[in-house]
Parts: sequence; structure tokens; C-alpha cells
Amino acid sequence: MLAETRKRLQQRMAQLQHSLGEHGWRAALIMQPRDLFYYAGTAQPANLWVPVEGEPILFSRRAHELIRKETWIRQQEQASGFTQMAAILKERGMLPAAADAVALELDVLPYQLVESFKRAFPGTRLASLSSVILKQRFVKDEWEIRQIRQAVELWRRGHHAVKDALSPGVREHQVAAVWESAVRSGGGDGIVWFRRWDACLPGGGIVASGENGWVVSGHAMTVTGVGQSQALPWGASERQLEQGDLVVLDFGLCRQGYHCDIARTYCVGKASEDRQDLWKRLLSLHMEVISRIKPGITGHELYLFADELAARQGLREYFMGVAPERGNYIGHSIGLELDEWPVLGAGAHEPLLPGAVITIEPKFMIPGRGAVMIEDDILVTDTGCEVISTIDRELDAR
Amino acid sequence: MLAETRKRLQQRMAQLQHSLGEHGWRAALIMQPRDLFYYAGTAQPANLWVPVEGEPILFSRRAHELIRKETWIRQQEQASGFTQMAAILKERGMLPAAADAVALELDVLPYQLVESFKRAFPGTRLASLSSVILKQRFVKDEWEIRQIRQAVELWRRGHHAVKDALSPGVREHQVAAVWESAVRSGGGDGIVWFRRWDACLPGGGIVASGENGWVVSGHAMTVTGVGQSQALPWGASERQLEQGDLVVLDFGLCRQGYHCDIARTYCVGKASEDRQDLWKRLLSLHMEVISRIKPGITGHELYLFADELAARQGLREYFMGVAPERGNYIGHSIGLELDEWPVLGAGAHEPLLPGAVITIEPKFMIPGRGAVMIEDDILVTDTGCEVISTIDRELDAR
Repeated sequence: MLAETRKRLQQRMAQLQHSLGEHGWRAALIMQPRDLFYYAGTAQPANLWVPVEGEPILFSRRAHELIRKETWIRQQEQASGFTQMAAILKERGMLPAAADAVALELDVLPYQLVESFKRAFPGTRLASLSSVILKQRFVKDEWEIRQIRQAVELWRRGHHAVKDALSPGVREHQVAAVWESAVRSGGGDGIVWFRRWDACLPGGGIVASGENGWVVSGHAMTVTGVGQSQALPWGASERQLEQGDLVVLDFGLCRQGYHCDIARTYCVGKASEDRQDLWKRLLSLHMEVISRIKPGITGHELYLFADELAARQGLREYFMGVAPERGNYIGHSIGLELDEWPVLGAGAHEPLLPGAVITIEPKFMIPGRGAVMIEDDILVTDTGCEVISTIDRELDAR
Repeated sequence: MLAETRKRLQQRMAQLQHSLGEHGWRAALIMQPRDLFYYAGTAQPANLWVPVEGEPILFSRRAHELIRKETWIRQQEQASGFTQMAAILKERGMLPAAADAVALELDVLPYQLVESFKRAFPGTRLASLSSVILKQRFVKDEWEIRQIRQAVELWRRGHHAVKDALSPGVREHQVAAVWESAVRSGGGDGIVWFRRWDACLPGGGIVASGENGWVVSGHAMTVTGVGQSQALPWGASERQLEQGDLVVLDFGLCRQGYHCDIARTYCVGKASEDRQDLWKRLLSLHMEVISRIKPGITGHELYLFADELAARQGLREYFMGVAPERGNYIGHSIGLELDEWPVLGAGAHEPLLPGAVITIEPKFMIPGRGAVMIEDDILVTDTGCEVISTIDRELDAR
């Protein structure tokens, strides 16, 4: 591991331990691979025990030798389960006392797994760790920002491939195949990560054309498409593109662990004036919202502003969904997971901070007329913001 | 919904209710999309409440109109959370009494979600539902078997595309892109489903060539490959193929909700005699194990038999991993998830039943010499078995 990387990860760890102290927690246990990678530098099967003071211990569940090479954490043990882990902590005099609080990722760990932790650590109080981790992950360092920029460059490959492939008769899932193939052969990870237990995207994204553009199906409130069967009723379908169709393409892309999340709308052939007009209205709203982004502003404020702009255009009932099913958000943070905390929407009163990377993703979904969506990735700077996803925004595919 | 489908799903529901009665449970709550699809026919965001007697109720969390079209369940309500659900059950006189047991999918639901269920249903005892569901899902009906056969046909497309693409200089992740693109443009779902909270496969599978063939990295005990970065240290890497390389390709494929899981090993160019010999030994072991498959035999027995065959060939320490990291299994069930219960390995004493669809996936991983793996999908019939994955098993790619 590079000295620079080691230093970065050690600083993260120090900040986490500081937070544990502020919360009065005795220790944290980190098991989720994304969080583990963030602090330990490895995503192998391991449990990271972080005491409020002193050195963390990495308990490898398997792949011990690989973990040794991948992590900066000096204290390493092998333990296949919680009972063995507790025994080792006891030997080291580090076992939490009864009524001590230990913080776990209770939003992602399955109920049964946490119950088995409780049996191995009787009397320990559980605390919820994830908001502390996600708050820390919200602000990216220089290396993380570079990673996201490189993911964007890969997305560009998909964009150009799709623009070349859009023509009447092509099916939505074939468009998805074109994007995914361009991105995967260019080095994409072939997966996108979600924190929410029931969230997922086929192939990393959505292709929704024509009348599929104004459907909200499945587990997200956005342009979802209708999918290929009831087993997965969102994402690309078997629908064939027709001349003049609007096609929304919204794909997350993970490269070496970091995501970008970008959407463009394309027209098959030349867009009618009506569609060009709708697209221009969306772009205008989009750029106005982006112009407001700077440290201190909240997701709540950005959403209300966007909603007001949609209302001024007389399109509020089609903004962020189709009334009554409308999302009350305008974007979200991205990083090691595709949808990171916070969602920028009603009730998100956390101020944006320099180093945050967020998306802005307005959409109009007008039944019978068309759906348009755009999503860009934006770095919050010291004084304002920078649009990272500099990918052209022309509606006409060719 | 077709009358035939409705009937099939109603029978499943009756069988589930029977099991609830046997366990003395008052009701089951089904939330996981794969399980929901199995019983209700929809994978939309909804909670299925199944009383031990009487009609089940589907509580839609969203997409109410779509759910109405997709499911056969007559009793439908809208409820965004557990509190609202409990209120509706109370109104209907269906609220469990204190100390009644309600069974939930405790292996997959996050801890926090189950805690919020407990707050809405105070006094209710929790039971673990998943083993009942998985036992039922173990035996496939005719329709499910057809679905899996169709997934196999799609895998064949990927197989032929890869055979054409393997040549020196091509990178592992480009091989993955070729397979994934062939399959996705042919109608693959673009996702594979796992039940285990920390399991995943980039793009649905593994490409491991040359020395990457004998590494066990990440969250599975198999030929894993090494991945493209520490953020995802398994799956295809950036390694370029060389003349004479062995390339293991192990991909799960989901089509309209059902999986096949197949692996082949290819040689870049003409395989040396040593590698042909290793491949023949593996095939011989593979076919011998398959010849034993019939109703009544257990995964435990199949694994021990395979292990004994490996020992007879003098290759036991390289069988199913590299000693000391060797898996003690020989296959698993497949269906709505890629790795279904039971894993066919040490301790799996459940007898196979007609209608089960399982994989057999032996591998030799010999450091410095090569890795070979094969995986086939096999239907257990009334008297024996049928290999479903009739895809050629030639080592030489061209």
C-alpha cells in the first residue's frame, strides 16, 4: 500500500474514533464491504473492530494472506465468527464491559447476523453506526474525486456507443447491452452498489423509451422503465425504438469502487419542436438549480427551488414523477455507493460542504407527450461548484 | 394473469399456509422481492401478509396500480409502513395476539427494519421464515424448469461469443464484456440475485485466466479471479490472455427471474497434453458424480463421493480450492436466486427430490500448473437426472 494511501486511511480512522468518543461508544464493528474498503483499504471478508482509543483490529474471516497484503491495519487476527472474535478481544483485554455500547451497521446487517453478534457479546448495548460513517463519507478527498472523474470518462464511452446505436427497431435491452459492453470493456466493475437492502439496477441502469418513459415501477421513484418481466419490473424492456422516440438513459457506473451517476435523454432521429422545447425547459431548470450549489445550501432548499421552477413552467405535476406519484427530491450524494446520504430533498437540512459530490437529476414525465431526464455529477467547491460530468447534452442522437 | 399461473401460485400459497400451521405460527410476512414474486407473482414494493388460515393480504408500499395488474392476491391494501399495516390488520380483526408468532425473512431483512416491525407489533414473537420458503422453492414446477432451460439457451449465446473472442492480448474484463453483451442483447435481466447479504458477482460472473485461476479471493470459495482493484477483489481482472492460457468462465445468468449457473474452461489456442489430461480428469470426475444423482441421494453423499474421486486421482489437495482453502461442497440448488438452499456439501443431509434443479461444479486449482472448472445444471427426475446445460465441453476455444 502506498504511503500516501496509508496516511489517508489512517486519518479517516482517527476521525472515526473521534466520532465514537463523541457518541460515548466503546467500539465500532465494521463488516459491510464498502465501509470496510473505506477504512481498511480491503473489501475481503473481514470484520474491523475499532475501539474508541488504541489500534483497530482486523479479523479476517477468510483470505488471510490477501488481506495482509491489502490493508494498512497492523493488528490482524483470524476469526470465522463472533464467538471467536469475542474470545480474542477478551484475551487482549479489549472486550466491552456489560452495558458498553458497540456501534454496528444496523441498516445493512441482516437481523439474524446481529442476533448472533448479541449472543457472542451478551450485555453489550447496540448503537447504530451507519449515520456516522455516511456523514464522514459525504466529503470526498482528492483521491476519491479523481476516482469519480475517471468513472465519468468511462461513462462517456457508453454515451458515444449508445448515440451510434439508437435507431428504429432496436430494443431497449439491446441499447442497455451497448452501453454496458462499452463500459465494461473499458474497465467498469460490472456492478453498482446500493446500501438499501431492496435496491438494485439491472446492468447498472435504466433505458426507458416512448410510453415507458412515464411509468414509475419498482423500487425507485424516478424514470424506471418497465423491465422485461414481472420478475424485475423496471429497467430496459423488450420495446423496440420508433422514429421520433424520446429515450431516457440513466446509468450508474462503478469503476474501481467509485460511482458516477449520469442520465441523458436522446431522440431517435430528429426531435420535434415540442420535444426540443420540453428538453430546453428541463435544461434551463437544471442549470438554474446547479447555479445555486455552494457550501452551506441544503438539499431541502435546492429541492424547493427546483420545484418552484417547475411550477413556474406550468409543469409541476409532471416534475420528478407523475402526480400523485412524484418524488420530493432533486438529487443525492455519490461515492462508494450509488445513492449515498444525503438524498437532496424535502427535509434534508444538512448544509452542503466543499468536497461533496452530488447529483442533480430533474425530470419531466408527461403521459402521452414524453419523458425527459438529465442527471449530472457536481463537485461542491469552496466557493461554488463544478460540473464533473461534462458530457454533451444534445437531444438528437446523431 | 393467466388462469394457469394463478392456479400455480394459489397452490404455492396453500402449501405455505400448511407449513405455517405445522410450525404453530400465526402468520408470515414476506417482503423480499424474490420470495414475493414466488408467492404473489409481483416483485413490486409490497408486503405480503399470510395468515395461517384465510386470505392473504398484499400491502403495497407504492406502485399500487401496477401491483393490482400483476398479482392474483385479491385482498389488497396500501400501507407505507408497519404501523399503518398493523392498524389495517386490527380493523380487519387479523392482528396477532400477544405471544403469537409471526415468521419473517430474518436472514435477509436488515436489523433496523425488523426492529421497526417489532415496535409496530409489540409483544409479537418473531420466527424465522426463510427455511420454510427455501424448502418449498427447492422443488421446481414445470413452468420454472422451462424458465431455467431458457436461461441455459441464452448462456449458449455467451459461450459462442466468448469462444470467438478468446485470443492473446484480450483482457479478462473484455472477455466478460463479450459474454455479458451477448447475453444482455439476447434478453438477459442484467442482474443475478443472491440471498446472502454480502454476496455479489461483477456482471454475473468470473473470468480467471492463467495464474488468476488458482486464487481464492473475496466472498466465495471457488475459482474467483482477482478483480480489477481492491475495491472488488474478485471477478475479471485487467490481465491480458496469453497463448496457451487456461481461462475459467463461471457465469450466473438470470432471465425473467430464473437463473442458470454454468462454467466452462477454455484454452487460448491449442491445449498442451498436460492440460488436456487435467481437463479429462475433471470431466471424468464430473460425469461420475452426475451419474449418481437421483432422488434420495444427499448433497453430503455427492460431495464425499466427489472428494473420494479427486483423492483417487491424486488431486485432492487441489480439489475445490487450494489446500488449506478448499470448499467442502460440490454444487448447489438454483432458481430465483443463484445460490439456493441447499448447498450440496458436507452436512447437507436433505435427500434430493424430483423437480430439484442443482449444479455440479468440480474444479482443480493447481498453482503453477493451471485451473480447470466445469459447472452444469441438472434436473433431478423421478428416476435419475437430466443434464440441462447441454453446452459443449471442448477445452480448445477454436
